[in-house]
Amino acid sequence: MTTIELMKERQSIRAFDTEAEMPEEDLQDIIEAAVQAPSSWNLQHWKFLAVTSDEKKQELLPIAYNQKQVVDSSATIAILGDLEANIHADAVYTDAVDAGKMTEDIKTQLVANIHAAYEREGFAKDEALINASLASMQLMLAAKEKGYDTVPMGGFDKAAFIEAFNVPERYVPVMLISVGRKTGEARKSKRFPVEDVLIKDSF
Amino acid sequence: MTTIELMKERQSIRAFDTEAEMPEEDLQDIIEAAVQAPSSWNLQHWKFLAVTSDEKKQELLPIAYNQKQVVDSSATIAILGDLEANIHADAVYTDAVDAGKMTEDIKTQLVANIHAAYEREGFAKDEALINASLASMQLMLAAKEKGYDTVPMGGFDKAAFIEAFNVPERYVPVMLISVGRKTGEARKSKRFPVEDVLIKDSF
Repeated sequence: MTTIELMKERQSIRAFDTEAEMPEEDLQDIIEAAVQAPSSWNLQHWKFLAVTSDEKKQELLPIAYNQKQVVDSSATIAILGDLEANIHADAVYTDAVDAGKMTEDIKTQLVANIHAAYEREGFAKDEALINASLASMQLMLAAKEKGYDTVPMGGFDKAAFIEAFNVPERYVPVMLISVGRKTGEARKSKRFPVEDVLIKDSF
Repeated sequence: MTTIELMKERQSIRAFDTEAEMPEEDLQDIIEAAVQAPSSWNLQHWKFLAVTSDEKKQELLPIAYNQKQVVDSSATIAILGDLEANIHADAVYTDAVDAGKMTEDIKTQLVANIHAAYEREGFAKDEALINASLASMQLMLAAKEKGYDTVPMGGFDKAAFIEAFNVPERYVPVMLISVGRKTGEARKSKRFPVEDVLIKDSF
């Protein structure tokens, strides 16, 4: 199946096989694919919290407003955006210097520019949401290719989630994605036609 | 090539063949694939402004801080997030009622809930950024599959962009993505290993 076909096949599934398990290797492969997403300055503004144990799924259930896919699926992965991804700048560009692709001086200036951008009001959060979402989409497509289905959820009690899962202040919850083996087919939801969403050259 | 392989092949390209053109059909196919992304309540919080004319590319160049891919690539697509995507709720759920999947009463309640959520401080912008980013990732992968390469850009003068392209207040610029035929190979950027970004069950 081509990637574009896979995009058209993917749909949000809420009915999962409660007996199906996801081997650790599949989880690792899916996350490894997800993190191939691009990110601003390659800062990789994402963290994945995979809720797989029965105990933690039950704890998540009311936080996710009792959406039953949280307990029925094999795992629910919380995608967290990193509000302090600028901390990664030094490590990311040290690699570039070591590879001979950047001088130490250019690196120093670039890292300073990144830290300066992070001083701007609202910048860190916007970056966290955007970049973590790019990885989220790859996660859903990678899961689909490996024979799983997914459903992303924006509706959950974020404050309760942070408390229950000891999420450090550094991270903002972006979405939950349940992953598992579907039972039955969902109704394919419609999209507005391309001519409604594409503008050429200027409004 | 599998989708996961495609994710690993995709890299941000800044050197494009200035002679290459993208047929309108390819642009349409790429956008059609992009909009298959999921979105909260299927509100489809995205709009795509494809800058393809030489005149508009030149106008975009300083706004994109003179990143030359803006003029060298076949098109630069601005992804805009819709701050008023709740306006779509009625149309989206009228479809569901017509398909016999939802009662009129449930639709009325759901649409009211959506409008209420949009009253919450910051909600509309977060939703616009997250959901438009999901479509952005599909856009980059779809382009790659069709033989194009891309580079997403978060660094551009958003206020100047809004003015130059007459972007209505309803939309927030999320990113620019240049699309074209690459010349030469870029250095594949590294990612942090899975064990650095994956947490099991709780922090």
